[in-house]
Amino acid sequence: MRISKEQAAENRERVVEAASGLFRERGFDGVAVADLMRAAGFTHGGFYNHFPTKEALSAEALSRAFEEMAGVRAKAADMPEMLSGYLSKAARRAPGKTCPAAALAGDVARQPAPIREAFADGVAGMIENFADQIEGPDARARATVLLAQMVGGLMLSRGVPDDHPLADGILKAVLADCLAGIRVAA
Amino acid sequence: MRISKEQAAENRERVVEAASGLFRERGFDGVAVADLMRAAGFTHGGFYNHFPTKEALSAEALSRAFEEMAGVRAKAADMPEMLSGYLSKAARRAPGKTCPAAALAGDVARQPAPIREAFADGVAGMIENFADQIEGPDARARATVLLAQMVGGLMLSRGVPDDHPLADGILKAVLADCLAGIRVAA
Repeated sequence: MRISKEQAAENRERVVEAASGLFRERGFDGVAVADLMRAAGFTHGGFYNHFPTKEALSAEALSRAFEEMAGVRAKAADMPEMLSGYLSKAARRAPGKTCPAAALAGDVARQPAPIREAFADGVAGMIENFADQIEGPDARARATVLLAQMVGGLMLSRGVPDDHPLADGILKAVLADCLAGIRVAA
Repeated sequence: MRISKEQAAENRERVVEAASGLFRERGFDGVAVADLMRAAGFTHGGFYNHFPTKEALSAEALSRAFEEMAGVRAKAADMPEMLSGYLSKAARRAPGKTCPAAALAGDVARQPAPIREAFADGVAGMIENFADQIEGPDARARATVLLAQMVGGLMLSRGVPDDHPLADGILKAVLADCLAGIRVAA
């Protein structure tokens, strides 16, 4: 049974969406093509009609996750609100729905070039976006430091057991410093 | 052929050492027991004479890696030298020989409790060590922020392609801020 071009595009989209969440939750190597297709509601067989390799999908799903983040930032409008959400208990518990840099920085470093390029584009986009919202000198360097702090804080908080005092303690200390940092800037 | 108690302890040690480096390079799920044993110079069969599970070895190898870090910090004596080494190109290219928090924060979040407990102990130790070396108020909170910045900076730098401008750019911006931060403190 042949499907329409529109239906094929829609199916492809569903796979990218599913991959974008699952990779953030389990890492690139923690999800097999069969799992991805099942999560999107398809059988394994159709995968290679849409993507030449798992790697190609990984790079595209990563870019998609960074695009979603850009949407969230644009809507949040102000930095304090964005920071409070980024460094929250809810975000800590939802890697599949939040920042791909924090979910996948460790995994990306072991992946081939196309995935690391997609990561670099996403990180560069986040830094530029922050720099645009930071007043004062050295906005780009300060945006870089801010991102490193956010990503490091969320990742360390996720690594410790969820009920360990450090899980909340790290988020709290890092959020306070990020908020003070952008206040100095304004 | 039976081996002596001393020899058995020495063999066990070699497996922990090999695991400590390999896990940092490839992640816990990226190294099989057979690979670990081969890297330590043994056949697969002996593993379960030394460790009840791969998970038990993972937790022990992670703790060992954090202990090595503590040794490095004690020797470095001053924070600027430690920071310059931590956020260097050489460290970026040697995850297996450098900070386990930066090498494994992403992986640890997907591992069972004993491994995350070992991670929490290691992170708590690093924060305490930094806090002891920071003057002024809120030393513990500031040490927490410092660690988040270091780990986030190194991880983001490792994620982008090694020849991408951001690979060095992130390290440079984060190092400058860390050095300024401890200077304010002193």
